[in-house]
Amino acid sequence: MKINNQHYHTIWLKEDDEKVIQIIDQRYLPHEFIIEDLTTVGQVARAIKEMHVRGAPLIGVTAAYGMYLAALEARPESLLDDMSIAAKQLKSTRPTAVNLAWAVDQQMKILAAGREFEPQLLLRHAEQIKKDSIERCRKIGLYGLPLIEEIYKRKNSTVNILTHCNAGWIACIDYGTATAPIYAAHDAGIPVHVWVDETRPRNQGARITAFELQQHGVPHTVITDNAGGHLMQHGEVDLVLVGTDRTTRTGDVCNKIGTYLKALAAKDNQVPFYVGAPFSSIDWTLSDGLAEIPIELRSDTEVKYIQGKHEGAIKKVLLTPAESPAANYAFDVTPARLVTGLITERGICEANESALQSLLEKENTLISDR
Amino acid sequence: MKINNQHYHTIWLKEDDEKVIQIIDQRYLPHEFIIEDLTTVGQVARAIKEMHVRGAPLIGVTAAYGMYLAALEARPESLLDDMSIAAKQLKSTRPTAVNLAWAVDQQMKILAAGREFEPQLLLRHAEQIKKDSIERCRKIGLYGLPLIEEIYKRKNSTVNILTHCNAGWIACIDYGTATAPIYAAHDAGIPVHVWVDETRPRNQGARITAFELQQHGVPHTVITDNAGGHLMQHGEVDLVLVGTDRTTRTGDVCNKIGTYLKALAAKDNQVPFYVGAPFSSIDWTLSDGLAEIPIELRSDTEVKYIQGKHEGAIKKVLLTPAESPAANYAFDVTPARLVTGLITERGICEANESALQSLLEKENTLISDR
Repeated sequence: MKINNQHYHTIWLKEDDEKVIQIIDQRYLPHEFIIEDLTTVGQVARAIKEMHVRGAPLIGVTAAYGMYLAALEARPESLLDDMSIAAKQLKSTRPTAVNLAWAVDQQMKILAAGREFEPQLLLRHAEQIKKDSIERCRKIGLYGLPLIEEIYKRKNSTVNILTHCNAGWIACIDYGTATAPIYAAHDAGIPVHVWVDETRPRNQGARITAFELQQHGVPHTVITDNAGGHLMQHGEVDLVLVGTDRTTRTGDVCNKIGTYLKALAAKDNQVPFYVGAPFSSIDWTLSDGLAEIPIELRSDTEVKYIQGKHEGAIKKVLLTPAESPAANYAFDVTPARLVTGLITERGICEANESALQSLLEKENTLISDR
Repeated sequence: MKINNQHYHTIWLKEDDEKVIQIIDQRYLPHEFIIEDLTTVGQVARAIKEMHVRGAPLIGVTAAYGMYLAALEARPESLLDDMSIAAKQLKSTRPTAVNLAWAVDQQMKILAAGREFEPQLLLRHAEQIKKDSIERCRKIGLYGLPLIEEIYKRKNSTVNILTHCNAGWIACIDYGTATAPIYAAHDAGIPVHVWVDETRPRNQGARITAFELQQHGVPHTVITDNAGGHLMQHGEVDLVLVGTDRTTRTGDVCNKIGTYLKALAAKDNQVPFYVGAPFSSIDWTLSDGLAEIPIELRSDTEVKYIQGKHEGAIKKVLLTPAESPAANYAFDVTPARLVTGLITERGICEANESALQSLLEKENTLISDR
């Protein structure tokens, strides 16, 4: 999608230098737009861990490129050992993101299958994962579009959609997951307006979702995470659309902390609650999200301090008494019973095992998924 | 309660100068502790509107003192007119707070009843309202204490209580409403730990509740407003205790935006949800909180900017794209069906009309309520 009227992806191979990966360093958005060069797997691991890049799909692609950079660094005499260490390093950066482990494992498989080792194989596969990721989001947009269209036909006025966190194109490569149907509707001329949860503590909504909607010209309003329930009580939300970091085979959704609260409010007010869920987010080994998904506990400084712009510079300010402890749970689990449906790249389905299985049996056109 | 080991109320008549009211200017807590002098009704109105003082009980007492200051300024030849204008000015500052209108109306009644006008009558009544407000909170603490005691007896380990916003002593004169049972339990030696919702956009939890608990030595942890649902899903919350700005006679609770989301999560996880609700918060004219209570829409700058401490100074930083709109709904309504009980100064009751009526018929020892 566009930033300053120029088309961008969130990650790409540097023009004229195949040993450099470039990313948008998201930490300073929306105030500063910085492009960062990555040349080692260590830099990639840091970029993922410290959230220069974030969002499950983008983390996966970034890790795939990271394995390519690791291959460039690896010693031929200890190739598999070096690559295993790199794989571990990458996987340890974000324990919740299933896409990350999946992409790393895909690269390890290619490595194991090749007779003669050639880093280009890993580069080509990273490029394929990226291409498929774009296509996957595009399809989520196509499958989700009719949901918005139907609401518009019924009410014949602007469709109000609430989203939490950033499951937009900046969390992916392009289009986004939760935002793909929104962009598709907007581009099709359906009047949409997005309530953007600011999404404390890291404010991915206020910073990134607002930024990308604003750059694309989609009407939106930033609200606190506290406000969504009130809006739903008063009929100001027609649809909730969120992303997912990890989905169980039974349809439980592990997404940014606070998603569960919005799902409860949607249920209480009969507002449809849909999840943009690429198949790569589904962990088929899990059946009980609440019991089985470990929740990342991040640094308390993300709660105690917040970053913003003051007199042209980016500053971190202390919000709490210096002596008060804080806790920073990064995700929560929304049980399938609160999810109206999952919007996948193979179609929409209910949030349960048999519905997901049915979609799994459909033809899949994405090469890296096979 | 104590700040820096010295006992304070949130508002008092200045020692040796009966024409000056002093308040704690809460806007800079917890970073700076500032005492402000108020000498005119205009200053009082500004202090309420711009939230130097906040919290329904404290707003009421402040408005009562404001009427006293107005009386000092009023011209004898147009006393009632001047005082009516002052009453209107004070009432318009915070439309949701029922205590405010109540306190102002009480002062107008005293004015109307007196044969000879004497500002001291209004001062004395303001002092009485203040004294009763302290006693009311103390009683809410006494009636709420057994709830915590029972949980402690059952689990025999620390009782975890979640609270939203600041319904603490700094929102009142002393003790607080939601916090009164917590302080009572802590002082009785029951181990309690408080999850403090930061409470965006104005962060009254992270700034003020954390500050007062920390100063009093009550173990606590600041969390984002998004985290409470996750904690309840995992059994980390034994009790939710919040305040109320306005309670319908049917038990609907209008409190800080986001309270409704916590009530939904409490219900979904069988966590008791209690509201510290002084009778002065009850609006007997209202039966349907959602339909009848107007929700204050505050400035969008409170969402787009946040204040904190940076290198020793208090700074406001921009959180969103400068061009993105924001909306700032200040309160929401929690329907009575989600409220386990109301803790009042006359006892605990269920959140319904007949239960509240029964308590109303109990003897009332607070002079200004009669």
